[in-house]
Amino acid sequence: MIRAVFFDMDDTLYDTSGFAAIARRAAVKSMVHNGLKCTEDEGYEALMEIIREKGSNYNEHFNILTKKINGEEDPLIIVNGMITYHNTKFAMLKLEPECFSILLYLKSKGYKVGLITNGKEIKQWEKLVRLGVYPFFDVVVTSESVGVEKPDAKIFEIAMEKLGVTAGTSLMIGNNFDVDIMGAYNAGIQSMIINSEITEDQQKKLDELNYHVEELKSLISLMNIL
Amino acid sequence: MIRAVFFDMDDTLYDTSGFAAIARRAAVKSMVHNGLKCTEDEGYEALMEIIREKGSNYNEHFNILTKKINGEEDPLIIVNGMITYHNTKFAMLKLEPECFSILLYLKSKGYKVGLITNGKEIKQWEKLVRLGVYPFFDVVVTSESVGVEKPDAKIFEIAMEKLGVTAGTSLMIGNNFDVDIMGAYNAGIQSMIINSEITEDQQKKLDELNYHVEELKSLISLMNIL
Repeated sequence: MIRAVFFDMDDTLYDTSGFAAIARRAAVKSMVHNGLKCTEDEGYEALMEIIREKGSNYNEHFNILTKKINGEEDPLIIVNGMITYHNTKFAMLKLEPECFSILLYLKSKGYKVGLITNGKEIKQWEKLVRLGVYPFFDVVVTSESVGVEKPDAKIFEIAMEKLGVTAGTSLMIGNNFDVDIMGAYNAGIQSMIINSEITEDQQKKLDELNYHVEELKSLISLMNIL
Repeated sequence: MIRAVFFDMDDTLYDTSGFAAIARRAAVKSMVHNGLKCTEDEGYEALMEIIREKGSNYNEHFNILTKKINGEEDPLIIVNGMITYHNTKFAMLKLEPECFSILLYLKSKGYKVGLITNGKEIKQWEKLVRLGVYPFFDVVVTSESVGVEKPDAKIFEIAMEKLGVTAGTSLMIGNNFDVDIMGAYNAGIQSMIINSEITEDQQKKLDELNYHVEELKSLISLMNIL
């Protein structure tokens, strides 16, 4: 019997990738408008390449982009990118109604609810606070705060210990097969995948491991299961 | 005859200190509300002490404050401080109408207009862009970008060279005696002080240097002089 439900955050509780893409497009548009010497599409492609190379937690994507395209850093262009990115991101940062509903449902049914996320402590908490959902969580574990990240079993074990629950009574819900699903497997926890489809290769792996993973259509559909 | 007018930014073009104080009070209020174990006044005093110690460009004031008061860092409290500080700051960041008017006046009369500011390149440019005044400036020199800061004569010389003007035809306007006024003196530039009164000791120093500095009542009063 499930007693605790653990969620991943980005692209599970809300559409991170979708709004990051829009905020980046808005940023590049503003940069081109302020002197970045390329088309919006070229600028966006170049930005994505920089993000792939440096990772999304790097702070100077727009500096590098400006230097790469224009040959030198120009603070006017960089700052316009930064301001537009942040304004757009925070304007869009809101929860899908069904996410709030399912968290409320789980709490009302007596489940413990946890969050297990790979990322920087302050950055992830900022999103939880801006989204307004942190009071739902009995525990929040960020990889930065504990020094290990999914799919390492340890991060799940830390979260379970904080809630006083066992792997056998826990359920993990996330969008990333390699990180969330394989992490749950490593920790001996049942899991469901959301916002992502299991590929043939992944299904083959699951069969070999004799580990069954359900595809969730939406967060709200959890109500039919729990 | 004056051909170029150089401005300091913070507390000269807009009331930095005033709105920083309000944004910090708002941040501390939110932190206390979210679990910082002190009164708002105690929290504010402790924060100001940390800012004096670490400088205003340090990024983790709220982390230290939380650790100092509660004995440990708490991301919920830290993040609430950060979000409230930024929301308040950007909500308040707007130009006094007279600042826009005087910049427009100077440009319409054919003066070159420059900005010379001690601070980080991106942070200072962000304010210029958010304030919407950067198009007025023929040159913007931040101490970070050139590696020297006011009151070093060099930062003024770099700004004058970029505009193709000499010290004899330049005027510096700033609020800080030691930085702006003494810097202008070091560079052989005439200067006026604003938003600050010259103390007796400072006047004595000016008399010894045989350097006359006028106290400007407001930016707009420049119209009566230029």
